[in-house]
Amino acid sequence: MTQMTQATIGDSEFDRDTAVARREEGVYDIDLSAGWTIINAVNGGYLLAVLGRALADALPHSDPFTVSAHYLTASRPGPAVIRTDVVRTGRTLSTGQASLFQYDEDGREVERIRVLASYGDLDTLPDDVRTTARPPAIPPMEQCFGPQDGPAPVSGSSAIADRLMLKLDPSTLGWALGAPSGKGEMRAWFGLADGRDADPLSLLLAVDALPPTAFELGISGWVPTVELTVHVRSRPAPGPLRVSITTRNLAGGFLEEDAEVWDSAGRLVAQSRQLARVRLG
Amino acid sequence: MTQMTQATIGDSEFDRDTAVARREEGVYDIDLSAGWTIINAVNGGYLLAVLGRALADALPHSDPFTVSAHYLTASRPGPAVIRTDVVRTGRTLSTGQASLFQYDEDGREVERIRVLASYGDLDTLPDDVRTTARPPAIPPMEQCFGPQDGPAPVSGSSAIADRLMLKLDPSTLGWALGAPSGKGEMRAWFGLADGRDADPLSLLLAVDALPPTAFELGISGWVPTVELTVHVRSRPAPGPLRVSITTRNLAGGFLEEDAEVWDSAGRLVAQSRQLARVRLG
Repeated sequence: MTQMTQATIGDSEFDRDTAVARREEGVYDIDLSAGWTIINAVNGGYLLAVLGRALADALPHSDPFTVSAHYLTASRPGPAVIRTDVVRTGRTLSTGQASLFQYDEDGREVERIRVLASYGDLDTLPDDVRTTARPPAIPPMEQCFGPQDGPAPVSGSSAIADRLMLKLDPSTLGWALGAPSGKGEMRAWFGLADGRDADPLSLLLAVDALPPTAFELGISGWVPTVELTVHVRSRPAPGPLRVSITTRNLAGGFLEEDAEVWDSAGRLVAQSRQLARVRLG
Repeated sequence: MTQMTQATIGDSEFDRDTAVARREEGVYDIDLSAGWTIINAVNGGYLLAVLGRALADALPHSDPFTVSAHYLTASRPGPAVIRTDVVRTGRTLSTGQASLFQYDEDGREVERIRVLASYGDLDTLPDDVRTTARPPAIPPMEQCFGPQDGPAPVSGSSAIADRLMLKLDPSTLGWALGAPSGKGEMRAWFGLADGRDADPLSLLLAVDALPPTAFELGISGWVPTVELTVHVRSRPAPGPLRVSITTRNLAGGFLEEDAEVWDSAGRLVAQSRQLARVRLG
């Protein structure tokens, strides 16, 4: 992946790999790229962005405000079809539903993920900001570490690492050195490797692209997402994002992951929460 | 509402008012009770419990693990029909969808709320608890205040107040005295007025039953929910619940409300987040 020039919104790896082809009204085809896999599974944030793009086409509003996804079966790279349904259209918000299907060995559709989402227009929102949350304290990017920086098994041997600019806060990297902190925290600088700036769709990727907080809790197994809901609150400014993920309730074989995404202008642009299963070793 | 004896799970006001009648497979009738209204609207948590009960019947698992609801139009007391769809059934989790409809003046169905939910069996979960969250610091119940305790306009003139045991932390009651704290916090002891203990379904009510945090931010208008997702993490122990709600990002005419529900045994039994619109005065 040699980048000659910086990619732009609309002309980038992320845009090409999430592009959906309209087969008929409300139905879209896509070939899920192998470039966004972790181990054998397609990344859940990438899938959310694919579904988000289909809904942006199907609904009269273009920006995801709140997207709730229930993950049913593991997606694989390859052909998929997305079926959307317009639930309600309003002046400022519209609501839609979308399901992504792949095919079993007999060619039957198998549902992978279903989402409910409400869309609006971020650019028409009033510009009041009364955020009391504080941006995460992450060291400067040059003091943070990514998969390219050393032998640490960041994200395992996954294709997605090549597509992300991910620089993890060293204080949440204990797991990579065999010494997890015991705190359910993960923080990183985040961007796309080809330099494309963030937009509302790529925020859907950003909330599920860091290593799981479970790693810092000493759990090294698979942590599949059951449900993930993301709120996009503002169009992100150009430049790298800061992503902070926190787990406060690991119990009964499940945990929540709360993500915050902050843009370069210091604005909280997205919040998400997911429920995931943990395999205790 | 004179209570001669303490109500029990299965035989209480809440159970009667959320009971759904199966019309045919997957379709349920209900008469939405006027007893759970705030001003003119039916409480969103009550609606969630109604839908949750229908899904508990439609799915092979009985306990809501994660429920995502998108609120489309305001529900009114009176007849409604719930249509459910089984999305996927698995060994430990099953996923369903449900929509609640009411009728316009021409008798046509109007969709009020749509939910996606994954259900399981709370009693089969392993009993590990590694929760790092701390219960909210709420003063003893006798130092807290409810609608019955004075002239404070708690929840306005709403029927729901008669059905709840709600005792608000005085430090989050500034709004009722004309002096909102400016902090997006609301905390209360919570129960049902007839003494029925909490169960997973009543937790769906508990996460949306306190006055909005917006009141403490000095916003007195209507704060309609766009989307609400709740995770039920454990079957609650008998006794009153503690509910804490926090808003950290009021911006662009929207805010999030994060709720935590703790049971009498000190366990974090539910977490929720909603996106709501605010009408800035």
